[in-house]
Parts: sequence; C-alpha cells; structure tokens
Amino acid sequence: MFITFEGGEGSGKSTVIKEIAKRISEAGREVVLTREPGGTPIGEEIRNVILEKANTSMDPRTEALLYAASRRQHVVEKIIPALREGKVVISDRFLDSSLAYQGMGRGLGMAEIYQLNLFATEGLEPDLTIYLSLDPEAGIERIEANPNREINRLDLEKMSFHELVHEGFEKLAKENPYRFVKVDASNRVEQVIESCWDAVEKRLRWR
Amino acid sequence: MFITFEGGEGSGKSTVIKEIAKRISEAGREVVLTREPGGTPIGEEIRNVILEKANTSMDPRTEALLYAASRRQHVVEKIIPALREGKVVISDRFLDSSLAYQGMGRGLGMAEIYQLNLFATEGLEPDLTIYLSLDPEAGIERIEANPNREINRLDLEKMSFHELVHEGFEKLAKENPYRFVKVDASNRVEQVIESCWDAVEKRLRWR
Repeated sequence: MFITFEGGEGSGKSTVIKEIAKRISEAGREVVLTREPGGTPIGEEIRNVILEKANTSMDPRTEALLYAASRRQHVVEKIIPALREGKVVISDRFLDSSLAYQGMGRGLGMAEIYQLNLFATEGLEPDLTIYLSLDPEAGIERIEANPNREINRLDLEKMSFHELVHEGFEKLAKENPYRFVKVDASNRVEQVIESCWDAVEKRLRWR
Repeated sequence: MFITFEGGEGSGKSTVIKEIAKRISEAGREVVLTREPGGTPIGEEIRNVILEKANTSMDPRTEALLYAASRRQHVVEKIIPALREGKVVISDRFLDSSLAYQGMGRGLGMAEIYQLNLFATEGLEPDLTIYLSLDPEAGIERIEANPNREINRLDLEKMSFHELVHEGFEKLAKENPYRFVKVDASNRVEQVIESCWDAVEKRLRWR
C-alpha cells in the first residue's frame, strides 16, 4: 500500500507522518518512511540542488525537471521494491506536490506537469493521499515561529505563491475524491492525527 | 547564431571546438563557448550528479530528466541571452546528445526523449550542428590512450551502448540534412578542423 501526505508549508506533515507510521507498525505491518524530493542517495543530491538557497536563478522548468528526476529514482529504487515486498510505503510529498507547486504555483500548468511526470512515474499513483489543508498564511506563521526548522528556498517565496499552491491542492482534492482524504490541519495535532489514522486504518484492512 | 557539436566519446570535439571558436573570434564575431551537461552554475551541479562514477544505480529516465533540467537552465540563463546580444554560441553537445544517448543508447526512444526535451527547450534548435562521426571502437581507444582525460560514468559503458549511440547520431544526421553537417573524425585533426570551418564560415556570412 502506497500512502502520500501532501500539503503546503507548515501544514504539520512530518509530525503527523511519524505518528501514523508508528501506528501502522504497531498494527503489524512493515513501514517504509520516505520523502520527496530525496528518498534515495541520488535523490538527496538532487534535493540539495533544488533547495539550495543560493540557486535563486533557477528557472521554473528546471525545477520541475529536477523534481521529476528525483521522483523517478525514488519510484524505481525505493517505492516499487518496497511495495513488491508487501510493505506500506509512506511518502512525505509525491506527484501532487509537483502539480500544486510547479503546475499551479509557478504557472506551468497542471496538465503539462502531469504529462512530464508520467515520464518519471510510468503511471504509478498512490493508493491514498492525505492532504493536510491549511490556510497558507497560518502555515508560514508556523514555520517562522519554529526556531529549529531550517528555512529553504521555497519558504522564501512570496505569499501569493503559497496561495496558488494551496489553490492547486484544493483543486486536486476535489478532482480526485476517491484517492484524496482532506484533513483540516488547523485543528489540534491530536485531532489531525486521529482523522489521518481513520483514513489509513480503513484501507489497511483490505491491503 | 547557435552552433552545436555532437559526436560519441573520443570524437575529438573539444580540440576542434577551441580552434573553431578562435577563428570565429578572429573573423570579428563575439563567441560564447559552452557545454552540456553544465554551462551554468546550476547546470554544473547537475552535471556532477549525472557524471559521478559512484552513481551507478541511476535509472535511465532519471538520467534523461537530469540532462533535460541542465539543458533548460542552459537555454534560459546562457544561450538565449547571448543569442539576443548577437553573439555566436557554440555548445559542446545539446539536444541531439540526449536523443542519441538516452533515446537510442538507453532504449528510451528518440521520439519520447524529443517530447521530454521540448518541455526544456520550448522549441529552440541549433542553426548548425556539426557531427564528428567516428567508429565507436576507435573513439574509446582514443580515450583510453589519453592519460590526461578523466574517465566518467559514461566512458565506462559497454561497447554495445556506444554502438547504439553512434547509430542514433547517424540517424539524426540523415533525418536532418539541412541542420547537420557530418564530418569524418577519423581524419587528421587539421583536416577535421578545415571541414568544420568550411561549414561554419559559409553560415557566418549570413548571420
């Protein structure tokens, strides 16, 4: 079973993912926790190029191609082998992040980014996508309030960018009602976790 | 005017390019010499990921996406601005290398790689492509005989790979007779340079 978590900056994905992984593991299933960009040694090298604060001259299409490259390596080297061994794979971000960030946020078009990513994924889609929905202003406030979080190139974008990304995710959630579960991330973290677990547990029974 | 040089490993591109650039410059035109993968700071970072010998687990599609990413940055940050200033841009490898190496050599399909690269180039094509044609075995022998050349991941490929790449370039030269000038790189270097200069000089008159 392949589960992805999506959401804007500061939506609290990492905290929630850790707890959900723990619970799946307690339910007796082997869990592989991974993330994008990155997830493999080559992917982490690509991640460093993408998120490097100094790379402010990066063209939006370069960025989209780098995300797709990192994703490709992630799919063949980590996700597919783990799924074949019957493990539950949880990825912090996947294809939908590219659609929201590059397709919508950068204005490259969601359909064009989807097409590009088909080259990378050869059609692999998550069984479940949990979308932590949060007002972008609230998300950025959370990031700025956290002294431990390292600020990267994307955090430095204008608010209008984060609003477009949010719009992109909302659109994807609406258009993929079966795959997406939208969770209100403005709630207390315990409540967010329960909502996520509810969605995961239901599907774990069958897979 | 945008000129690209293409050819397999050991075809002698770098030596020839230096001399051609010198002659264009002596003819009074400003020349920008560049290369792929690389050509920009971000592109050089991507180049390091692609050519790193340790990255033997790299999937062919990851590789194709990284070349396209490097190319995109190259086009917007270096090639287009120089062309707009009326300079002559010479690139050591461009789109055709991806078609030959990933499309043909890796078996991903030349049409599919062309499609992917349209996302990167948005249709930019060279005015002239000089293809240094050389039997792949002779090319690899040349590389191995040169103690100064650093061996990279592509040099370590099997001979069958280099033969496919060669076949790809020959096909491209045949299919694009107007853009391509094929030069026999098994000749003495002075003769190779004269053939290349002949092709360049003719076009310089008009551009």
